Amino acid sequence: MLKTRKMSESRTVQTKLVLPPDTNHLEMIFGGNVLAYIDEIAAITAMKHSNRAVVTASIDKVDFVSSAKVGDVLELEAVISSTGRTSMEVYVTVHSINPLKESVRKLTTESFLTMVAMDEDNQPVPVPAVQPETKEEKALFEMGPARLAHRKERLKTKH
Amino acid sequence: MLKTRKMSESRTVQTKLVLPPDTNHLEMIFGGNVLAYIDEIAAITAMKHSNRAVVTASIDKVDFVSSAKVGDVLELEAVISSTGRTSMEVYVTVHSINPLKESVRKLTTESFLTMVAMDEDNQPVPVPAVQPETKEEKALFEMGPARLAHRKERLKTKH
Amino acid sequence: MLKTRKMSESRTVQTKLVLPPDTNHLEMIFGGNVLAYIDEIAAITAMKHSNRAVVTASIDKVDFVSSAKVGDVLELEAVISSTGRTSMEVYVTVHSINPLKESVRKLTTESFLTMVAMDEDNQPVPVPAVQPETKEEKALFEMGPARLAHRKERLKTKH
Amino acid sequence: MLKTRKMSESRTVQTKLVLPPDTNHLEMIFGGNVLAYIDEIAAITAMKHSNRAVVTASIDKVDFVSSAKVGDVLELEAVISSTGRTSMEVYVTVHSINPLKESVRKLTTESFLTMVAMDEDNQPVPVPAVQPETKEEKALFEMGPARLAHRKERLKTKH
Amino acid sequence: MLKTRKMSESRTVQTKLVLPPDTNHLEMIFGGNVLAYIDEIAAITAMKHSNRAVVTASIDKVDFVSSAKVGDVLELEAVISSTGRTSMEVYVTVHSINPLKESVRKLTTESFLTMVAMDEDNQPVPVPAVQPETKEEKALFEMGPARLAHRKERLKTKH
Amino acid sequence: MLKTRKMSESRTVQTKLVLPPDTNHLEMIFGGNVLAYIDEIAAITAMKHSNRAVVTASIDKVDFVSSAKVGDVLELEAVISSTGRTSMEVYVTVHSINPLKESVRKLTTESFLTMVAMDEDNQPVPVPAVQPETKEEKALFEMGPARLAHRKERLKTKH
Ligand SMILES: CC(C)(COP(=O)(O)OP(=O)(O)OC[C@H]1O[C@@H](n2cnc3c(N)ncnc32)[C@H](O)[C@@H]1OP(=O)(O)O)[C@@H](O)C(=O)NCCC(=O)NCCS
Ligand SMILES: CC(C)(COP(=O)(O)OP(=O)(O)OC[C@H]1O[C@@H](n2cnc3c(N)ncnc32)[C@H](O)[C@@H]1OP(=O)(O)O)[C@@H](O)C(=O)NCCC(=O)NCCS
Ligand SMILES: CC(C)(COP(=O)(O)OP(=O)(O)OC[C@H]1O[C@@H](n2cnc3c(N)ncnc32)[C@H](O)[C@@H]1OP(=O)(O)O)[C@@H](O)C(=O)NCCC(=O)NCCS
Ligand SMILES: CC(C)(COP(=O)(O)OP(=O)(O)OC[C@H]1O[C@@H](n2cnc3c(N)ncnc32)[C@H](O)[C@@H]1OP(=O)(O)O)[C@@H](O)C(=O)NCCC(=O)NCCS
Repeated sequence: MLKTRKMSESRTVQTKLVLPPDTNHLEMIFGGNVLAYIDEIAAITAMKHSNRAVVTASIDKVDFVSSAKVGDVLELEAVISSTGRTSMEVYVTVHSINPLKESVRKLTTESFLTMVAMDEDNQPVPVPAVQPETKEEKALFEMGPARLAHRKERLKTKH
Repeated sequence: MLKTRKMSESRTVQTKLVLPPDTNHLEMIFGGNVLAYIDEIAAITAMKHSNRAVVTASIDKVDFVSSAKVGDVLELEAVISSTGRTSMEVYVTVHSINPLKESVRKLTTESFLTMVAMDEDNQPVPVPAVQPETKEEKALFEMGPARLAHRKERLKTKH
Repeated sequence: MLKTRKMSESRTVQTKLVLPPDTNHLEMIFGGNVLAYIDEIAAITAMKHSNRAVVTASIDKVDFVSSAKVGDVLELEAVISSTGRTSMEVYVTVHSINPLKESVRKLTTESFLTMVAMDEDNQPVPVPAVQPETKEEKALFEMGPARLAHRKERLKTKH
Repeated sequence: MLKTRKMSESRTVQTKLVLPPDTNHLEMIFGGNVLAYIDEIAAITAMKHSNRAVVTASIDKVDFVSSAKVGDVLELEAVISSTGRTSMEVYVTVHSINPLKESVRKLTTESFLTMVAMDEDNQPVPVPAVQPETKEEKALFEMGPARLAHRKERLKTKH
Repeated sequence: MLKTRKMSESRTVQTKLVLPPDTNHLEMIFGGNVLAYIDEIAAITAMKHSNRAVVTASIDKVDFVSSAKVGDVLELEAVISSTGRTSMEVYVTVHSINPLKESVRKLTTESFLTMVAMDEDNQPVPVPAVQPETKEEKALFEMGPARLAHRKERLKTKH
Repeated sequence: MLKTRKMSESRTVQTKLVLPPDTNHLEMIFGGNVLAYIDEIAAITAMKHSNRAVVTASIDKVDFVSSAKVGDVLELEAVISSTGRTSMEVYVTVHSINPLKESVRKLTTESFLTMVAMDEDNQPVPVPAVQPETKEEKALFEMGPARLAHRKERLKTKH
């Protein structure tokens, strides 16, 4: 049987400096680049949890609540927030800071993604269950079934 | 007053060859790269409709229903599916084909994004209304308010 | 025997947003980037027509008749304009629009390329003949032999 | 007067997935890419400590003690290890893990860089002193003058 | 009056290692990447000759006479082969070597480009005449008017 | 026995145009990009000398003595400065010029790297000895053992 894994074991942190090629002609970062960073950190986290190659099954609705410009630093953080049989739900937060100003750290966005572990024949394969420890981790974990139910309902109603 | 614009006027088509740097070590494309392509074509479509710089306010849940590998060709298509005062809803579809095999064209994913037009001072600015013409365009357009209502409801319930 | 293929079947459309890394310090796009885009769309078109891997044998003289700058959108279009035994002639046009201004669409450049279909041992392999349908397609197709003759003559005179 | 800053405040963590474009034809990462990642995290750390734009004045000798290949994950960590008047010494470590295997974490390399804070006129400008707190941080900090003396001596003897 | 400049003064050499992102799924370099490298070295050469920003006006027909694969090294060389009032003709050669084999150096392609010098208002501006010195340089230079005549004739006959 | 090779045979020259994606928001090139260019040219030089795949074992301390900005041209030059059994020491210099100004050529940095030749099983493999010819080449070569001794001593004292 697959052993469980602590949520903290696969927790991953990313730091990205926003550079000119990431931005439009107003020097604001493209939303699409932020989405690509979110997907990359979710994939690394899910690989570390499952010791498997992974694919992105879905990403929940993403709202960009603040922007970031050339010279800003993006800080991403990801944890496995709950697990199914072969799928892992990953929770990602993105904050931006302007390193030339003191300590203002703004939420850019947050999202849940579903990653699926794949075996050598590109078939879904079981993953270890995730085990939350701190109070915060437990809160995130316990809402997992509700998020899942909501996701399933949406799939039925087709948008 | 701002004149309306036909849905077909800003319709945009993209073709992407999947190359090694876009893929993981199983040669499958990263979801994040597809998300970046979706955001790019949505931004181009919204700029063409509004003649304005635009930012991504949100992207609805994206389900990746099939994959694509090195050597495949991705075909993206985007239209303005409905409009608000300063925001535009963009509908994007992504299909993949394997050019070395005959005529199998698979749906990769589809999504709705909300883009907001910005003026020179980075403030939201009104956009022309979109005008659907064909039966298919009208069906897409008429479901716009339902999609908007669903989006607002989700924001309230916080996931 | 290889069946023929309609010219419209492999017709390919590309849309590119000009970004800072594509441009020089005057924010004008490098000619070399436009050439790379032309080659990419020609390769996709030729792969779709032949269902084969392809290599670029040659590109005819390219004149850049207008420029494009950061924020402009390039629209590329490619068709198989005529076919040999193992080679395909591809006709590519590039237009630019400034999405912040209404409806000025300028020709940037146009060119003919010769792509050769390759088998698994990297040897040239026969391709289906192309079949034009519309009046415009037929005009393009019928000038194919003249363009080929001109190309062969130039190869002899070495520039 | 400039206040001091805790070493932990600007501590920065990076996670990089090694992809095909980062590697040679044996799928081993180029040393130059690792050096570029080291410089990037050192710059972010120094900007966070000084709230200034920074330039790299020097990087000490770097020994690559183990390698990394496509699919591996690099984990970088950087802290300000000591400060001068306008310069900051940054200590960077790089470890690699193979996420498909359990828990082997290898040191790839470690290095010290000197970053200089620059004002709006591109002139060196004073930085806050760094303040170590833990035992480990203090050990790193206290060897700073010895490292600086060694560096100055080397500049004199020209290699 | 503008002084003349020796052909050798602006001569430029480039060396490129062919990497996975430059190649198709057969690991052969894309013609479009070679074209982008040719344009880049031509631009550098023309900037060095004219001390001006430059744009690519045209590139003559390019025949790819041999290929290059991942791990090969491309060697590009460019000289100003003749000058007009505001335009410079640049001659570029591309050779490939396989560094894992001894001393086989193959011609990949060669081409002539026309670059135009631009002033601060983006208007064509006079350039120094080029002065050939060696016998080889003189042969290249003396054929300039014939190449120019051929180019003009082609523009008239439209392909 | 492995024959010797002349130092001039593997000498390699690189020319790089500094573009926006290579630079920070002050348009100054990142030190890390210069380090990546230095490693790339060292690898090409070492592959040409040994006809082998190579890995970077170490790079000596690098001092950036002047900067380069968008639009500048970097000129890199590399030679095999001495050889061990399986390792090659490569000497790299980097100069920058502003092509819009006449003939000021500034040293950006210089460095020594150690590259190791690898066989098909990724094991170090002997390399030909290098043979200097000119007075300048001999001076560089003869200081090789002193540089090596210094490097070994540093490895012992751990910084
Ligand atoms: C999108 C943004 C401009 C809205 O700003 P605001 O202060 O809320 O402005 P308003 O309240 O007037 O809203 C403007 C429009 O955006 C819509 N909008 C705002 N937030 C939205 C969201 N999360 N999803 C969908 N639409 C949204 C509003 O409904 C409104 O539409 P309408 O007036 O045309 O019907 C702002 O949130 C922002 O700048 N976000 C970052 C965008 C960005 O940079 N994205 C890229 C990567 S971070
Ligand atoms: C193109 C290439 C495959 C032709 O090989 P070849 O040994 O001459 O093969 P063939 O003589 O059988 O010619 C094959 C076809 O290519 C055509 N062809 C060859 N050279 C050509 C050229 N310079 N311009 C246009 N067509 C050309 C031939 O006319 C023939 O066409 P057809 O079968 O329709 O009559 C070979 O030159 C090559 O591999 N070049 C490098 C291609 C490459 O890698 N390009 C990208 C970057 S370097
Ligand atoms: C680094 C640089 C700003 C130093 O300029 P300078 O005129 O020597 O300025 P100063 O003498 O005032 O030195 C400023 C600080 O840099 C330090 N410094 C200068 N050269 C250094 C070197 N090679 N190694 C380590 N520290 C160095 C000085 O010790 C001084 O530190 P302190 O204020 O803490 O005592 C200058 O050499 C430069 O611009 N270099 C290029 C930097 C760059 O662009 N790098 C990226 C790629 S090229
Ligand atoms: C470099 C490497 C191959 C040496 O392996 P090793 O098991 O120590 O092999 P050896 O002891 O036989 O040493 C081979 C040669 O490398 C030299 N070498 C090893 N470590 C070195 C270092 N840090 N600096 C300089 N030379 C070094 C040895 O002196 C020896 O040279 P010689 O044959 O000319 O006498 C190994 O450490 C390695 O693979 N490192 C990672 C390299 C890499 O991938 N770099 C890129 C980014 S991580």
